[in-house]
Amino acid sequence: MNKSLAASVSPALYSTKANARIFTLTSTEHNIEVADWKIDSTQLGIIDTYFTIEQKTLHGGKQEGSKVIILTSPNGLTITLSPTRGMSIMNVTGKEMRFGWDSPVKEVVNPAFINLESRNGAGWLEGFNEMMVRCGFEWAGHPGIENGEMRTLHGKAGNTPASEVEIEISEIAPYEIKVRGLIKESTFKKADLQTIAELSYIPDTYSFTIHDHLTNHADYPRDYQIMYHSNFSKPLLEKDAQFIAPIKEISPFNDYAQKGLQDWATYLEPTKNFDEMVFNIVPYSDADGYTLAALHNKDANKGVSIEFNINELPYLTLWKNTDTEKQGYVTGIEPGTNYAYTTSIEREQGRIRQIKPGQTIQFKIRYSALMNREAVDTVKETVTNIQGNQNITSIQTPIAEE
Amino acid sequence: MNKSLAASVSPALYSTKANARIFTLTSTEHNIEVADWKIDSTQLGIIDTYFTIEQKTLHGGKQEGSKVIILTSPNGLTITLSPTRGMSIMNVTGKEMRFGWDSPVKEVVNPAFINLESRNGAGWLEGFNEMMVRCGFEWAGHPGIENGEMRTLHGKAGNTPASEVEIEISEIAPYEIKVRGLIKESTFKKADLQTIAELSYIPDTYSFTIHDHLTNHADYPRDYQIMYHSNFSKPLLEKDAQFIAPIKEISPFNDYAQKGLQDWATYLEPTKNFDEMVFNIVPYSDADGYTLAALHNKDANKGVSIEFNINELPYLTLWKNTDTEKQGYVTGIEPGTNYAYTTSIEREQGRIRQIKPGQTIQFKIRYSALMNREAVDTVKETVTNIQGNQNITSIQTPIAEE
Amino acid sequence: MNKSLAASVSPALYSTKANARIFTLTSTEHNIEVADWKIDSTQLGIIDTYFTIEQKTLHGGKQEGSKVIILTSPNGLTITLSPTRGMSIMNVTGKEMRFGWDSPVKEVVNPAFINLESRNGAGWLEGFNEMMVRCGFEWAGHPGIENGEMRTLHGKAGNTPASEVEIEISEIAPYEIKVRGLIKESTFKKADLQTIAELSYIPDTYSFTIHDHLTNHADYPRDYQIMYHSNFSKPLLEKDAQFIAPIKEISPFNDYAQKGLQDWATYLEPTKNFDEMVFNIVPYSDADGYTLAALHNKDANKGVSIEFNINELPYLTLWKNTDTEKQGYVTGIEPGTNYAYTTSIEREQGRIRQIKPGQTIQFKIRYSALMNREAVDTVKETVTNIQGNQNITSIQTPIAEE
Repeated sequence: MNKSLAASVSPALYSTKANARIFTLTSTEHNIEVADWKIDSTQLGIIDTYFTIEQKTLHGGKQEGSKVIILTSPNGLTITLSPTRGMSIMNVTGKEMRFGWDSPVKEVVNPAFINLESRNGAGWLEGFNEMMVRCGFEWAGHPGIENGEMRTLHGKAGNTPASEVEIEISEIAPYEIKVRGLIKESTFKKADLQTIAELSYIPDTYSFTIHDHLTNHADYPRDYQIMYHSNFSKPLLEKDAQFIAPIKEISPFNDYAQKGLQDWATYLEPTKNFDEMVFNIVPYSDADGYTLAALHNKDANKGVSIEFNINELPYLTLWKNTDTEKQGYVTGIEPGTNYAYTTSIEREQGRIRQIKPGQTIQFKIRYSALMNREAVDTVKETVTNIQGNQNITSIQTPIAEE
Repeated sequence: MNKSLAASVSPALYSTKANARIFTLTSTEHNIEVADWKIDSTQLGIIDTYFTIEQKTLHGGKQEGSKVIILTSPNGLTITLSPTRGMSIMNVTGKEMRFGWDSPVKEVVNPAFINLESRNGAGWLEGFNEMMVRCGFEWAGHPGIENGEMRTLHGKAGNTPASEVEIEISEIAPYEIKVRGLIKESTFKKADLQTIAELSYIPDTYSFTIHDHLTNHADYPRDYQIMYHSNFSKPLLEKDAQFIAPIKEISPFNDYAQKGLQDWATYLEPTKNFDEMVFNIVPYSDADGYTLAALHNKDANKGVSIEFNINELPYLTLWKNTDTEKQGYVTGIEPGTNYAYTTSIEREQGRIRQIKPGQTIQFKIRYSALMNREAVDTVKETVTNIQGNQNITSIQTPIAEE
Repeated sequence: MNKSLAASVSPALYSTKANARIFTLTSTEHNIEVADWKIDSTQLGIIDTYFTIEQKTLHGGKQEGSKVIILTSPNGLTITLSPTRGMSIMNVTGKEMRFGWDSPVKEVVNPAFINLESRNGAGWLEGFNEMMVRCGFEWAGHPGIENGEMRTLHGKAGNTPASEVEIEISEIAPYEIKVRGLIKESTFKKADLQTIAELSYIPDTYSFTIHDHLTNHADYPRDYQIMYHSNFSKPLLEKDAQFIAPIKEISPFNDYAQKGLQDWATYLEPTKNFDEMVFNIVPYSDADGYTLAALHNKDANKGVSIEFNINELPYLTLWKNTDTEKQGYVTGIEPGTNYAYTTSIEREQGRIRQIKPGQTIQFKIRYSALMNREAVDTVKETVTNIQGNQNITSIQTPIAEE
């Protein structure tokens, strides 16, 4: 792809600050599709830091035609997203740090090869290997039937190729990079939910931010659900690794999780036959709705924090899948508008939100790699401060049965 | 693609008149696939008119890999078809004229991303935005189960990529252009229905013709259904726009349509909560079976006529979807072998036809843009003449319940 | 594709003998995908025989993007496989010899266009036209429901694009050629069955061997099923063509097959309304488990033998589909771990096998074209020798009802 052509296309997604370069990698509107593209900071005349951004088209197996965007900051993080898989984050690595996990699914599966309704609505599992996948927006949660239609596991966003993809690079230090994609869930007579899914990152740092704008393009109010399914394994997840968050209420997702309620916040080593335990959490926040959850390793010198706002994302699902490594040893920390029960239960229990015609709702999540004990301690302190002396309500039995 | 190569391939579809140039754009038989191709009349040595024909491959989102063929006649119509979507007509425009509509689905969705069985058989709605889509041929109509198999909404033809695509251009004035595609619905043990789907157009004119040849390649008789789902919005559809046709019988499709029976032939402005009303029509014809239906705007100076033969297409479905513009303000005029009830009802009521082994059945429909009052008046007169003093039977209650 | 690049990639699949050239045509691991590639023996410095190997990408219709590998030995066989369709063998031809058949499905259908769950689990029929397709490995057999999940007809392997494809050519006479593909059936929480599917062929000969390695990459034992669905038509199948095998037990698959039990081993000419009859066979073997089945023409001067081992593949399904040519006049000889009943029946009757974590199970089948009476006679003799004077148990009624 000709860079100047890409740069000459006016940004399709939404208004951006001045002094930034925009590169359009995909556009259904302008019929642009860049197969393979790479830029580095020196090409942009930036000399006080170094980064590269690359788009690659993958081949072979069920990843034929899937695209990934790899943002590399040698002194910070390397972040891999997939426009073909709904702007999901596939993997994040840095100095002895990794967000993500090793699923038995190794390929970046092209949604053309996925049937979400297969396996009784669990076809999503044939492509699930992301560090962060959006579960939503038309629906989310476990499979089930509503109004005769199957609500497939965790919805369609993660298996929807982005219609527009652009990269914005600030020309002013610290050269913030934004990767934006437009995910359309548009069906005649049904939802017309369009999400501008954005990741922003400042080179040389250990944090990045997801900032999504969900807009209802229909003339009718529509339900929406979203869970930011964020997944971690080694080196953060290990025996005696710890989950922390300011907690108002916790309950086990089902009977099996009930057995794990006593030590729900600590993790086991890879454990055969553990399968998975899920916990529903209502977090506390500060006065502005700000809250956070974190995972740190046993030595409390390495971790990840996930900051969000309970006005946008009032619930938190904790998914402990500490089965063996080959089965995908992983934990999911999932801020959302709801829990992972099937839509009909979420509706019954009042956790399905609506978006008005023309309305735009924003979601912002900040992921930070905690690179040392000090960083972990700071996050612990923040959690403690928000919790204060407020009670944790621990509900002993599942709040719903699927 | 090398034009001379394309021209050198012998026409795969069916015999054509002499003095014509054939360009093969797609051929599974000769393994030809032209990604991007364009020709204009001057390249063909034609100097007394001007037209262009172009094939483009679309990119991004769910239209990745979809092809469109755009036939442009600056003094007539611009017609866009999609070989990837079963030779559907996406859009037709001319001087202040447009056939087609604005669906919430904006992309020319590649069938690889469609699951027709999803949404309880209504997955078709995730790609529906055509000006004319063939509903058929193995089955058509609303979703339902027959013999344990799901009959998905409006069948598979519109989501079947053409196996052979060729363009024939007459070298003799008026230089008729034919765009032909072969749509195969071939399944082991099931249907082997193959349709040569043809559009023909004479540059500088305001009409075009669909001429399809459906052949049963199996050794057994097979059911077939076809509805030519032809869709119109502004500038033809507006408050007090009018539908006309010589009518023998009309009935409401369901209880909701029953409420609209009194003023079924006139249209509302975009109307919130209108949703859709559908009417089943048996048209009258002249002695040769010739009939027509038309839509004109309020001022009766702009319209479309659809001419067909009741021996081929005995029924007419009128779909009034005058909801808001964002929901897809549109009306469908759908000559067919049946109504839009699910196959089991159509069968029960005797509207499923059969095609014999080796038999070929033809369907011909002529679409004309009525560019002024005179053209509209002529069509009105034809309708009046066919109707004569014959009665309209208006059935007050739905003839079936889904 | 640059051959030297291909050759420089270390073999992804498994260790190979020395003195062989490896060409990697597809690799998800190394992100290699060769669209079109061809090599012949002279390029490899081989002068005492001649062969070519070619990979082509197919276009048009539902075969858009499908790849085939064509191995041509002018003095022996021409073998066409499809990596996109799970390394299935599409067709084999030689001097007046052909393995394979003419399905109404003519295209090498890209699995992106197949919904295996459609048609009540029989969507597989929309792509079925192979000479040999692996029915497995996560499940096989007729559609049905187990644990709420649909077991689609004959499983997913045949509709899974190969993740790694490589060609190994021995540099030492007789220059054995191996075409290997990796088929991954990997789903989070479900199977992680990976099969290295290999075909080997020695130029100028009339035999080839399938040698598969199925490995369970999960930490839990998993069910597996496999049927090598091997299909033949003219010139082998004709009126009074004969099936032979050393037989311990035979039973009709269903009531209809029961009617054909008397002359189950001979074939009819293309016969309208015959549809299909299926027979379940337990073969006898020699002391090492070696057995074979064969089909020969009426004159017993042309045939095919299929050699396998009952320790690997204890059952044999005989599929007689001698309906008319257009319906796909064909017989299937299918060595397998099970019969074609739906998984729940196979389980109930004890024919579902398990593979342990980390275990690799091998399957080897040798297909030989019997080019003359002598070759047919030799095979008949082998069958007779294995049968010896052991009884054939002919069960008169179906052993299960679907």
